[in-house]
Amino acid sequence: MGGQEIEQLIRLLGRLPGFGPRSARRVALYLLRDPQGRLLPLARALERTGAAVRTCSTCGTLDTVDPCHICADPLRDHGLVCVVETVGDLWALERAGVHWGVYQVLGGTLSPLAGMGPEDLNVDSLLRRVESGEVREVILALGATVEGAATMHWLMDALGQHAGVVVSRVAQGVPMGGALDVLDDGTLAAALGARRPA
Amino acid sequence: MGGQEIEQLIRLLGRLPGFGPRSARRVALYLLRDPQGRLLPLARALERTGAAVRTCSTCGTLDTVDPCHICADPLRDHGLVCVVETVGDLWALERAGVHWGVYQVLGGTLSPLAGMGPEDLNVDSLLRRVESGEVREVILALGATVEGAATMHWLMDALGQHAGVVVSRVAQGVPMGGALDVLDDGTLAAALGARRPA
Ligand SMILES: [Zn+2]
Ligand SMILES: [Zn+2]
Repeated sequence: MGGQEIEQLIRLLGRLPGFGPRSARRVALYLLRDPQGRLLPLARALERTGAAVRTCSTCGTLDTVDPCHICADPLRDHGLVCVVETVGDLWALERAGVHWGVYQVLGGTLSPLAGMGPEDLNVDSLLRRVESGEVREVILALGATVEGAATMHWLMDALGQHAGVVVSRVAQGVPMGGALDVLDDGTLAAALGARRPA
Repeated sequence: MGGQEIEQLIRLLGRLPGFGPRSARRVALYLLRDPQGRLLPLARALERTGAAVRTCSTCGTLDTVDPCHICADPLRDHGLVCVVETVGDLWALERAGVHWGVYQVLGGTLSPLAGMGPEDLNVDSLLRRVESGEVREVILALGATVEGAATMHWLMDALGQHAGVVVSRVAQGVPMGGALDVLDDGTLAAALGARRPA
């Protein structure tokens, strides 16, 4: 339908999360109806972002600069590091505006079944920051899942060797089995506010 | 979050049909996690399609060639023209594989409220084809809506001046108030098979 280019576009759109063949066709048609106003601006935004995106070597988030906007912000509290699983979790906390420190994005959780071990987590730059003495408190903001709990315990062990660093964990508000980035701002604020020593 | 380019990408994704802020962020993160494997291939597919897409000057569908693949196909019955509202309807009939003729894509329906008059419909090329004598039958495959019915009556008048052309309409199977492109293949086949003189 409509030539190889259009079919290829629909195929690629159909692979996006939350997409099926129907939504892929609907989005393709929406874009194709106005190439100048819709399709090409999106193509250019993707191109620009793809060329610019990088992983922050300090915290591991995705940004267009390294260090990222957060790590480079002198107004943020660099002694207060919030550890999250994913960039999506970091975005959720930033949208809620409830954390004035910095972050560490692990890029996942410990999961023997998924073959994720400690060496697969982005923790080296966190341990370096802790060793340098600049970190006062580490907040563990991981999901209330089996993997999140295992990761939290492993991190508490690793961080426990550094006297003088308080390790806390978000407690109240994260529902069992829930992921952080589906919570509303108020719940996130409550979870962060009611954190307790790990 | 993540720099202007990433925010702009999320904004553009959030304007796509069926998208909200959450799905826009989810798709952006999915793409950003693998720029080489996901983001740039999609950018290039959009770019290529945007450069290649054109409207068929014969039937009005979107394709990368003009005349489109269907109008240029000598194996299709060019004497049997199926009139549809949108390119999405044409795609639905092609997927169902129930029409071996060619098409006319009106690009909408008559709708005084939406300011759509006869001059806004893509009908000139249909009337030219009918006048040339190559068309044996015109099948009206419009949605069972008030606008679809108004358009159908207007088209029957316009086509009625041409003796020797049978005008039929899809009847059975199109649910009241329903659009064509959400129907399953069997319903589309039945609707087309049970067409009757208009
Ligand atoms: Zn950073
Ligand atoms: Zn055509």
